[in-house]
Amino acid sequence: MPEPVIASVGASPLGRTDLPGRDLFSVALAEAFDDLPDPADIVEAVYVGNQSETYEHQIMQGTLLAEWAGLRHVPAERVEGCAAAGALALRHAVKDVRNGEHEAVLACGVEKMTSAGTSGATDALSAAFDRAIEQRSGITAPSQYALLGQRYLHETDATERDLAEIAVKNHANAARNPRAQFPKEIDIATVLESDPVAPPLKLYDCAPVGDGAAAVLVTTAEMAADLNQPQVRVAGSGASANNIAVAERDMTDIAGARIAAETAYEEAGIDAKSVDIAEVHDAFTVCEALLAEAAGFAPAGTGYQSYQPPAERADGWTDVQLSPSGGLKARGHPIGATGLLQALEAYEQLTGAAGDRAVEDAETALLLNEGG
Amino acid sequence: MPEPVIASVGASPLGRTDLPGRDLFSVALAEAFDDLPDPADIVEAVYVGNQSETYEHQIMQGTLLAEWAGLRHVPAERVEGCAAAGALALRHAVKDVRNGEHEAVLACGVEKMTSAGTSGATDALSAAFDRAIEQRSGITAPSQYALLGQRYLHETDATERDLAEIAVKNHANAARNPRAQFPKEIDIATVLESDPVAPPLKLYDCAPVGDGAAAVLVTTAEMAADLNQPQVRVAGSGASANNIAVAERDMTDIAGARIAAETAYEEAGIDAKSVDIAEVHDAFTVCEALLAEAAGFAPAGTGYQSYQPPAERADGWTDVQLSPSGGLKARGHPIGATGLLQALEAYEQLTGAAGDRAVEDAETALLLNEGG
Repeated sequence: MPEPVIASVGASPLGRTDLPGRDLFSVALAEAFDDLPDPADIVEAVYVGNQSETYEHQIMQGTLLAEWAGLRHVPAERVEGCAAAGALALRHAVKDVRNGEHEAVLACGVEKMTSAGTSGATDALSAAFDRAIEQRSGITAPSQYALLGQRYLHETDATERDLAEIAVKNHANAARNPRAQFPKEIDIATVLESDPVAPPLKLYDCAPVGDGAAAVLVTTAEMAADLNQPQVRVAGSGASANNIAVAERDMTDIAGARIAAETAYEEAGIDAKSVDIAEVHDAFTVCEALLAEAAGFAPAGTGYQSYQPPAERADGWTDVQLSPSGGLKARGHPIGATGLLQALEAYEQLTGAAGDRAVEDAETALLLNEGG
Repeated sequence: MPEPVIASVGASPLGRTDLPGRDLFSVALAEAFDDLPDPADIVEAVYVGNQSETYEHQIMQGTLLAEWAGLRHVPAERVEGCAAAGALALRHAVKDVRNGEHEAVLACGVEKMTSAGTSGATDALSAAFDRAIEQRSGITAPSQYALLGQRYLHETDATERDLAEIAVKNHANAARNPRAQFPKEIDIATVLESDPVAPPLKLYDCAPVGDGAAAVLVTTAEMAADLNQPQVRVAGSGASANNIAVAERDMTDIAGARIAAETAYEEAGIDAKSVDIAEVHDAFTVCEALLAEAAGFAPAGTGYQSYQPPAERADGWTDVQLSPSGGLKARGHPIGATGLLQALEAYEQLTGAAGDRAVEDAETALLLNEGG
């Protein structure tokens, strides 16, 4: 089977922008294809991660962005799994290349969240919760994750201060990332004293609303070599649903993420200890703690130590560095693009293009993109 | 490579229902799995075609319906290409089986359109048009297809009466289809005298708004045999985007559909003449005429003769029978489910389960599901 690799990446500015989604995508695409032939000359299919039609009253984003890339008459579609839409798009590109369906596939993602404002984005995201069971109770993304946070603090030795330290760590990483929405360090007091959103989560425990797009070109290893592109091998991937209603889940075992990571490790023939860097889905600080455990980096109940240097973490923790990009918290979280921004970070880290934020000797990365 | 087959199908009632989308899906699933093991024992992945989150304020339909099928922790996602979402879901299932990713995949589709009423559905569908170019002009689905209809009548010998005859033919087919939303014959005067929607289209030129779900199980030929299920081989498929703005297209050459059909024929090693029955996307009567040409059944400008018996059609027409189900017009068009309802019809026709509407000696079917 052909070996799928990431051959190029690009992203738009992240945060509050004046551009509509299609133009954010064009900026990302232009960066990804800066040193390459025209997309129409090589790309054979397009997958678009996109969360909500409400931000721009626009569906058919597959068709729209294919046209915007100058690609007519290729298979093009939107895939949606809320905040995991970007990774689902990437996974399709990887599968198509590995299965010989195509030699070059564009995985991209876009979200124009600021058009709806914070309340509009909160409403759009609440559509990811179970309409019959949880939406009727008025649950929103922050209040759902606050429930997980309460439970996590109850079951473990973690404190609100530990969660705040995760935000501080991610802002410190973002300060070295010119792509970040918030490229600035913050101190622990800033987090702890920020406005309460839903206890135990405060404003600085939450990833921001923002606009953004990302483009990732997946090709065969041969094509990437022919194009003289640095390439990162995609050795494995996994995807797993979970019960949609939080009420139906074990709140501190993110089983969907755990199974997806296990599947990816198995396909790649590695284990969690092999992973040098990981971009995990810290939509809220407690998510980083939970996902560090789901990914097998940390023993149950110790994931909150992700902000500590490896030597200071509990026994059984790996040496992984979490979210060198700054994570969703500080790099930014334009929903449909997030999974691809994670891939962008891995590509730059593993090809020596991460500049000041480069993690020394990083050879293997895990991306963990969560849907809801 | 494993040979993908359709091994079972099911559908909910179509039209105005009291059930939410997830329950419509459950009805479809129960029919599909009536003689089979529990879905959790065999299904390895789920793809859901679904057009709009606005009808039920619900995204993450992949996760939701996987849970509703009793499937935990399988890969599950929603695919969206407006009205082509169902066929895109089916195509992923077929690819996954053919590529050895999975042995059994559930392709399903659901739409709960009546919750929004006709104006809400019209608004939801208008999101499929280009926001920057056409939505701002107030275009809706009927007015867009009216433009195509005007152009088609201008370029060809077709008349409004010919388009009306397509509706009459499809209602006659639906009258023999117990699944149809409108299982009744109509006469030509009913169409011609119905309320104008957007000239040349009148009310009876338009597919209805309605609720519905469909479920299609795709497996390997071996598994279908083990399960003692009648099986229909999926010999080929194709997908193609087109320019999203109608203003940017050749209005009477539906190039996306044409290229998708050509790709499917090539993959299957057949040509248009080999096709005995076809379910085409008659969201409006003129679509059937245009898609008969795009599929290669009819010479350019003669597709409107689809309602005529083969012997009376223009030279170059094939003997294909179009939309024995009654088509979107009379069988019904719950958007995300439509592509899978087309597959259901092909399955029942080709396995001898089509009852009174069986097309004699039908061995090969084409499904043509269009996005916008």
